[in-house]
Amino acid sequence: MTPSPAGRGRPRDERSHAAITQAAAELIVESGYAAMSIGAVAARAGVGKDTIYRRWSGKPELVYEAVFTAADTTDLPDTGTLEGDLTTVVQSLIEEFSQPEAAAAIPGLLADFAADPELRATIRSRFLQPAKERLIEVFDRAGQRGETGAEVPVDLVLDTLAGAVFFHLGIIGEQPGPDLARRLAAMIAKGIEVR
Amino acid sequence: MTPSPAGRGRPRDERSHAAITQAAAELIVESGYAAMSIGAVAARAGVGKDTIYRRWSGKPELVYEAVFTAADTTDLPDTGTLEGDLTTVVQSLIEEFSQPEAAAAIPGLLADFAADPELRATIRSRFLQPAKERLIEVFDRAGQRGETGAEVPVDLVLDTLAGAVFFHLGIIGEQPGPDLARRLAAMIAKGIEVR
Repeated sequence: MTPSPAGRGRPRDERSHAAITQAAAELIVESGYAAMSIGAVAARAGVGKDTIYRRWSGKPELVYEAVFTAADTTDLPDTGTLEGDLTTVVQSLIEEFSQPEAAAAIPGLLADFAADPELRATIRSRFLQPAKERLIEVFDRAGQRGETGAEVPVDLVLDTLAGAVFFHLGIIGEQPGPDLARRLAAMIAKGIEVR
Repeated sequence: MTPSPAGRGRPRDERSHAAITQAAAELIVESGYAAMSIGAVAARAGVGKDTIYRRWSGKPELVYEAVFTAADTTDLPDTGTLEGDLTTVVQSLIEEFSQPEAAAAIPGLLADFAADPELRATIRSRFLQPAKERLIEVFDRAGQRGETGAEVPVDLVLDTLAGAVFFHLGIIGEQPGPDLARRLAAMIAKGIEVR
């Protein structure tokens, strides 16, 4: 970010960042992914288009952040067991994919990512990082409890949990049953436990 | 299908069915999903457009069948263990999603399915049925060996395996490592075994 005079820089940057992602989320639901434009987002957020392009390379990157990473700053509780902790991770994934913005964004977002190898390459290195870090914390606690061994396949578990939720909600489009998170977490926890 | 005079009906229908799905698969790779038209498929297959519309409601349904169900008639071997059988199921999903036609078709197909609730509703009831039947056979054998109990969560396992493969190949777009099928199958097998 460009440096700003003392006392005026960071809060304004954070406010406009939040205004931009909020505007993007609203417009995805109102107009759909294809029709949504950076110009409309800028107008809604009360910023110039250049302000948006300084932070995001374009629509796919902005939409992904607006829709799929809003929940990442929430700390997930320590439930005391691997199965319990994985259940809260899956439940938060379900909530994320259940938002109307997610349903509106997914097909167009996938198409744009598939068409752009550079952007696609950032999915694991950047976009999935917060979820991966939450899983690493979960596995550290599980290791301390003796539930898991030293080598937990974090990427495999991440792909599997995210993939299962995405497939169920984003592709088949079914409403998740009340215990989907627990059932999926129980199966994966049992699949990786050592005791 | 419309009845035909004895000796001329069924073989011709099967040949034109195969010619149509083959043409669709070729054209997806050559022109991409969006640009591919029913007219072009009909011309390539040497049939009239009405022949296509008698069997498929439109492009999404035809493309899905042409790309994702070609492998379904293959019997998967009995490897002797649940983990081995699940590995072959996952490996066949990986091969299916790795085809160039799959990469070309996925984003546009998802968009068209998401926009059509009736079509989307058929995903589980029709399109996933062959994979589900293969899994049911695998679980029947596992039950006879005593590896699993009476209540195996077939839909949960199906969503999880298909979702994990789809997420890894279709979204992140990574080449699968040489043992992805085995690692994923081992985790899921352990997650559902009772012994």
